[in-house]
Amino acid sequence: MVGVSAGPDIDADRLLRRLDELARIGAIDGTAGCSRLALTPEDGEGRDLVVTWMRDLGMDVAIDGVGNVVALLQGREPGAPVMMGSHIDTVRTGGRYDGNLGVLAGVEIVETLLDAGVTPRHSLAVAFFTDEEGSRFAPDMLGSLVYVGAMNLEEALDTVGIDGAVFGDELDAIGYRGGAPCPGPPPRAFVELHIEQGPILEHEGVQIGAVTGVQGISWTEFTVTGQSNHAGTTPIAMRRDAALVAAQVSAEVRAVASRMGGSQVGTVGKIDLHPDLVNVVAERATFTVDLRNTDDELLRHAEDEMATFARSAAAAEGCEIVPRSLARFEPVEFDEDIVAAVESAAADRGSSVMRLPSGAGHDAQMLARVCPTGMVFVPSAGGLSHNPAEHTDAEDIEAGANVLLDVIVDLAEPL
Amino acid sequence: MVGVSAGPDIDADRLLRRLDELARIGAIDGTAGCSRLALTPEDGEGRDLVVTWMRDLGMDVAIDGVGNVVALLQGREPGAPVMMGSHIDTVRTGGRYDGNLGVLAGVEIVETLLDAGVTPRHSLAVAFFTDEEGSRFAPDMLGSLVYVGAMNLEEALDTVGIDGAVFGDELDAIGYRGGAPCPGPPPRAFVELHIEQGPILEHEGVQIGAVTGVQGISWTEFTVTGQSNHAGTTPIAMRRDAALVAAQVSAEVRAVASRMGGSQVGTVGKIDLHPDLVNVVAERATFTVDLRNTDDELLRHAEDEMATFARSAAAAEGCEIVPRSLARFEPVEFDEDIVAAVESAAADRGSSVMRLPSGAGHDAQMLARVCPTGMVFVPSAGGLSHNPAEHTDAEDIEAGANVLLDVIVDLAEPL
Repeated sequence: MVGVSAGPDIDADRLLRRLDELARIGAIDGTAGCSRLALTPEDGEGRDLVVTWMRDLGMDVAIDGVGNVVALLQGREPGAPVMMGSHIDTVRTGGRYDGNLGVLAGVEIVETLLDAGVTPRHSLAVAFFTDEEGSRFAPDMLGSLVYVGAMNLEEALDTVGIDGAVFGDELDAIGYRGGAPCPGPPPRAFVELHIEQGPILEHEGVQIGAVTGVQGISWTEFTVTGQSNHAGTTPIAMRRDAALVAAQVSAEVRAVASRMGGSQVGTVGKIDLHPDLVNVVAERATFTVDLRNTDDELLRHAEDEMATFARSAAAAEGCEIVPRSLARFEPVEFDEDIVAAVESAAADRGSSVMRLPSGAGHDAQMLARVCPTGMVFVPSAGGLSHNPAEHTDAEDIEAGANVLLDVIVDLAEPL
Repeated sequence: MVGVSAGPDIDADRLLRRLDELARIGAIDGTAGCSRLALTPEDGEGRDLVVTWMRDLGMDVAIDGVGNVVALLQGREPGAPVMMGSHIDTVRTGGRYDGNLGVLAGVEIVETLLDAGVTPRHSLAVAFFTDEEGSRFAPDMLGSLVYVGAMNLEEALDTVGIDGAVFGDELDAIGYRGGAPCPGPPPRAFVELHIEQGPILEHEGVQIGAVTGVQGISWTEFTVTGQSNHAGTTPIAMRRDAALVAAQVSAEVRAVASRMGGSQVGTVGKIDLHPDLVNVVAERATFTVDLRNTDDELLRHAEDEMATFARSAAAAEGCEIVPRSLARFEPVEFDEDIVAAVESAAADRGSSVMRLPSGAGHDAQMLARVCPTGMVFVPSAGGLSHNPAEHTDAEDIEAGANVLLDVIVDLAEPL
């Protein structure tokens, strides 16, 4: 490691061994990935392993009413801790780094400081939040939503999963309904190390991302209703083609994103036609529009442009169009001091670094509601995530954990 | 009926009664429609009824090796007959007019001439061809394809239906494998009365269509392959979005049809995305393009324009695109003398008339390969067909049958 950092370094081998050991629980045969859906026995087994590691380091482990786990290393002074963490649940066909890296890097940093004989001024916490993925119980980031008081505990416990299971029952079954209060006490600060889950760092050849915030997300489902007609006998001028309107709106989503530039992205990833036959003009088209921007005003502008275009395209074809909002999250901006601390820690360590927003959701965006928050990204090979082939090089994991270490030490031991 | 026709008139009540009686076989409860898929017991029962009517009129009924039925009324001179006809099989949820009208109008015309004591110079034939719809056994127009020698008899008999049944076995089961040769003898001329199955006549307020030919049809399935990516974390410039290419090509199909005008139509009625999720850039899109034109050169032009655009849109997005031809039929032009005869017969009968092409396929397009051929269209309410709600007004049926009568008399009794 080339750099000017004066502090200790994490033990990369130890971190990688823990990542590997955790990934063996729910391992997907023949891949490096694993499957530990929230509150399944595999999730329970993974939790037990991580809690054991936390307790082995002498940390106090608290479990709250929704199963969030917060392990505390007492500082020299009383008061709120500086928190690290993420989640250890995975999607059904997940990778070994998503979430797990942020939690186990926290454990590694605590062990590194203990090995160096350092007791920081402020306490340190390592947390993993329940059901970040939302793959079994919607919404995603459920545990951190409850932690910051944005979702009611009872509502969370009553949530019914895609398999019909009730959240509270499953939480009891794995023994993780704890007594710590919800919402939880705000930390002094929160920093999450995570894989990028996108291609930008790899594409730019940069090792560390100083995450500036999380994009705002707008999901809208449009249903277009026209008229089913024979594709041969119906003149163009007499058609009310729902599929055409869907196609025109889909193409415009890209056009709007390209025109706006910046962080604006737009995706039509799902479409269904009815009756969906080669020689029948479609009577109905249902499709989704996913718009994201780091700036809420620009996101609203993109939404407005699309709504206007959709109405006009439908009217021109004699179709009805009905939008339905599926999800809407405002953008989150991370704390400028922490973003700058990530940048300078990376530079001091000799890592290349760039600022970038997160296109995906993370527990950190919930914690940002209650305390200064930031994130550190490391590259994802091929931008791949939510896939057993998800991969981040060992040297990038080491670099990211060391940057997190330095930022945490700065926060816990302010000059 | 206002007009200057000097000949006899058909008996509209008798024709409507026969249409009604035939529609009771395979009737769909609570609708005016019926279900007599080719070579089912219902088709057999319908055939028996129509053959009985033909024989009651003293016609000689011949059945060929594929089940086509040709009933002959001997003329004053030997030689090939002037043929009327269509089909009596239906789609699974069919109407009562599609096909049946052309056959029963032929029966009605023979009875009208017999009642008037007329024996025309040339023989008359009324035919119904097997499996025009192709709903149970592909391809459609199978019986007339075999009749004109464009399909081999053995191949037809070996065809396996969507229900696993073998064509030849089912033909035997209903007792309609006959001894008349395939291909059959070319008629002197062929004229088919049919409902339009489209909205043009109704929209124009015109009673009779003088059908100029059948549009050429080109069906192509395109498969676009891009890369599956996170809809939030993947910048626009790094996407390979298969759904976007499908949308752009779909929109261009309409743009090409609009630019070309004339009879050019184009439809994208079927599309499938993979993985088809709101927040994932699609890796694969499969969609169909249906292009039709009455002019083969223009149809090829439309095909070329679409192929060029599809390649260019895919290349711009870094996607692969692979076209696969699903069907390609050249346009058919009907005999100008017969088209003109339909026009003048309608005018003489006081019916409004317009020339138009057929957007759908008909037995007549097969007969056009072996003899002068034409068609008479009557309006379809709302352009609806292949639907139990299919409807044509009684006065339009009467007008269409009288026009067919006059055209047939002209052909069978040339001056």
